[in-house]
Amino acid sequence: MPNIYEGRNVNIADVYELIEENSQMYIGWLKEACNQPSVSVLNEGMSEMKELVKFFLNKIGAEITEIETNGYPIIYGEINNGKEKTLTFYNHYDVQPVDPIGEWDSEPFETDIREGQIFARGVADNKGNLIARICALHAFLEVYKELPINVKFIFEGEEEVGSPNLEFFATNHPEKLLTDGIIWEGGTRGANDKRLHIGLGVKGICYVELVCKGANSDLHSSEAAIIENPAWRLIWALNTIKNENEEILIKDFYSDIKPLEEKEKEFIGTMDFNEEETKELYGIDRFIKNLSGYDLKDALTTAPTCTVCGIESGYTDEGAKTVLPSIAKVKLDFRLVPDQHPDKIAELLRNHLDAHGFQDIEIKQSHGLAPFNTDPNDLFVDKVLKSVKEVYKEPPIILRNLAGSSPMSKMLVDTGIPAVQIGVANTQSKYHAPNENIFVDDFIQGIKVTAAVVKNF
Amino acid sequence: MPNIYEGRNVNIADVYELIEENSQMYIGWLKEACNQPSVSVLNEGMSEMKELVKFFLNKIGAEITEIETNGYPIIYGEINNGKEKTLTFYNHYDVQPVDPIGEWDSEPFETDIREGQIFARGVADNKGNLIARICALHAFLEVYKELPINVKFIFEGEEEVGSPNLEFFATNHPEKLLTDGIIWEGGTRGANDKRLHIGLGVKGICYVELVCKGANSDLHSSEAAIIENPAWRLIWALNTIKNENEEILIKDFYSDIKPLEEKEKEFIGTMDFNEEETKELYGIDRFIKNLSGYDLKDALTTAPTCTVCGIESGYTDEGAKTVLPSIAKVKLDFRLVPDQHPDKIAELLRNHLDAHGFQDIEIKQSHGLAPFNTDPNDLFVDKVLKSVKEVYKEPPIILRNLAGSSPMSKMLVDTGIPAVQIGVANTQSKYHAPNENIFVDDFIQGIKVTAAVVKNF
Repeated sequence: MPNIYEGRNVNIADVYELIEENSQMYIGWLKEACNQPSVSVLNEGMSEMKELVKFFLNKIGAEITEIETNGYPIIYGEINNGKEKTLTFYNHYDVQPVDPIGEWDSEPFETDIREGQIFARGVADNKGNLIARICALHAFLEVYKELPINVKFIFEGEEEVGSPNLEFFATNHPEKLLTDGIIWEGGTRGANDKRLHIGLGVKGICYVELVCKGANSDLHSSEAAIIENPAWRLIWALNTIKNENEEILIKDFYSDIKPLEEKEKEFIGTMDFNEEETKELYGIDRFIKNLSGYDLKDALTTAPTCTVCGIESGYTDEGAKTVLPSIAKVKLDFRLVPDQHPDKIAELLRNHLDAHGFQDIEIKQSHGLAPFNTDPNDLFVDKVLKSVKEVYKEPPIILRNLAGSSPMSKMLVDTGIPAVQIGVANTQSKYHAPNENIFVDDFIQGIKVTAAVVKNF
Repeated sequence: MPNIYEGRNVNIADVYELIEENSQMYIGWLKEACNQPSVSVLNEGMSEMKELVKFFLNKIGAEITEIETNGYPIIYGEINNGKEKTLTFYNHYDVQPVDPIGEWDSEPFETDIREGQIFARGVADNKGNLIARICALHAFLEVYKELPINVKFIFEGEEEVGSPNLEFFATNHPEKLLTDGIIWEGGTRGANDKRLHIGLGVKGICYVELVCKGANSDLHSSEAAIIENPAWRLIWALNTIKNENEEILIKDFYSDIKPLEEKEKEFIGTMDFNEEETKELYGIDRFIKNLSGYDLKDALTTAPTCTVCGIESGYTDEGAKTVLPSIAKVKLDFRLVPDQHPDKIAELLRNHLDAHGFQDIEIKQSHGLAPFNTDPNDLFVDKVLKSVKEVYKEPPIILRNLAGSSPMSKMLVDTGIPAVQIGVANTQSKYHAPNENIFVDDFIQGIKVTAAVVKNF
């Protein structure tokens, strides 16, 4: 198409206008990305998704390097104009599994738009963000012909399985990591307050599987009178780990937690959280420990957790089977806050089980991520805030860290590189769950914010 | 074939001889029965199995009545010679599901004979018994031309789902139930002592499913900082039900238990139980609470149990999924002893959960069976003992009750009908488990014992 901006002075408002004009095309790109399955844990569609990511990076003329790992490759892209400053976008092209599939109202990998919302697996986490970054640069280039900064893209395919190769990338490709600031995935719009929530970090995670074994095969449950049941042993062990007051009972679990600074408490105080709407949305009548107000927001931001993500033993299909199981397994997810460390938590858990007589219960440490926080006084944070204020009417909320985890620490620890999370999802986007969604408007706004960051950087 | 017994005096030894001569044919009948799937809980092959049972009853000239229920029909058979005494055989033609299918060394529904053992789902529980009864009568009729007694068959298709229609049968067909004694399924040969274990009763059972619900859909596990986790609630609830000393903590759970009589203690004392071999077989290094000797046999016979047969919540496939589950379920099996009653146990469980703050946990009472015991002084018991002694070299062991459950009480409570359990399986037959099996020799001996009972009755 002829370029209408040729030969005239342009400004960022022209970019916003072009984004609006191109919105159907950009939504089409997002649908294309979401319709391609890319479930890393099941190795479903990963290779096809990788090619699709390269296809999109090609649209904006990025120089692409496929960095092989022992898992899925990292797609590294670069637009180097020889400028002074470099801005990096981190995203991931893998998504979570779709189960329970029966609870989706539309097919997870057939993007469906209903009443202003886009439904698909991965649309919130985080293909919406990945595509929005591409679209923003596309629009910027259409209008300005050239970027005022250098841009780098680090798109990995293993975020949903704990980013096992991101540290390898940082160690082996320091020149590719070199940057003045990173726009990270995450960051959401408040579903109620309509304000953008900007994150300056994430909780860490220690994800383990505990395995308890009994007899060498399942037995008739009448044998339970004399043969130990690994399911019961696992239940008793779990009961020693967390009590009904949600207190994690592992010795020294809380010891390394850094007290909050006053500024961080202020951040928490300014958070918006509509308790009644959230209760209604999730169909619950109370929050954990009946928390509300500041305490509830504080828990979401700063409380470490221990979550049973999955437990399985014996016969779990329909009807009755009288079986004494031979094995019981539980998947536990500890969310960590500064300065807890996943390896230490796994070690404390081992000590705890041993001390309580559960030496036989095996711990499989699946993956771990340390927490990460950016200094809120870094200038990069100011630039992003300015950009957000230009696009959104409401001022953003700053979160000391998000409740979720990301591999920020793996790549960024000790680099001094500031990272800020902004994104196109909202607090009710159903990450990792059936009917994952974002709003069409948030996607378009997210493109504009990214363009604004490029301009203000 | 010409009948070689025609016109000469015959005796039971001739029947035994004919059983030996026909053994390959009888094993063929067993294979035919085992190769037909009949998983009642999954409604797999039930209709075909019903027809096969009728086919076998036809071989011995039984008059067959198909008794419709609201589930699978009861196949009732009768050979009425107008004799004074009537002997009844109770068996079931349904079997348990085959999972975990990966742990079978041969196909569960393709009977495989290896080193003198017959492997198939249901071969021990209890198609081996059902077919052995048929074969015995077939052999007896071949030799004697006529039975000295009337014979009835009650073959149900719902034993593995708790026999929901057996009480209906007893109530609506009292004339069909009328008998002088019942040979029940169950009863096994000691895998080590080679002696037949004769049962005079069974434990009862109360099988329930507990369901705990959280949010209305699975959430990202970062939400666990503020949203309750039903898996944790279920674990805490279960922990209040049984402690690490295997004590069931439900108030009044033990109150109705009848103390053992001296004779019953003697029965327990004569039981054979090779502890070391059992440990090796099951790959365990100790029994529950380090029990051994009399205490171990006593537990197996007289201890009520509370068994987690299955527990499930959240993500249980391979790898890591960071999910906060919306629902958690556990299947619990309480084995009961005289005079505990399943309805009362379910009521006590409800009271217990309420008293411990778990009013929200739903109890689904799947099925229940009261315990049942035959008076050891009944003459029918003597006749069966005599028959067993004629066939087996070692005297049998009498069990006050088996460790498993059966719907004996449903049909027999308050009838005064004595029931004795003898069977072709052994104590290592892996009931309900992968690689379920019986020995070929036990199958043949079992046919002979049944023939002896017919003669001695």
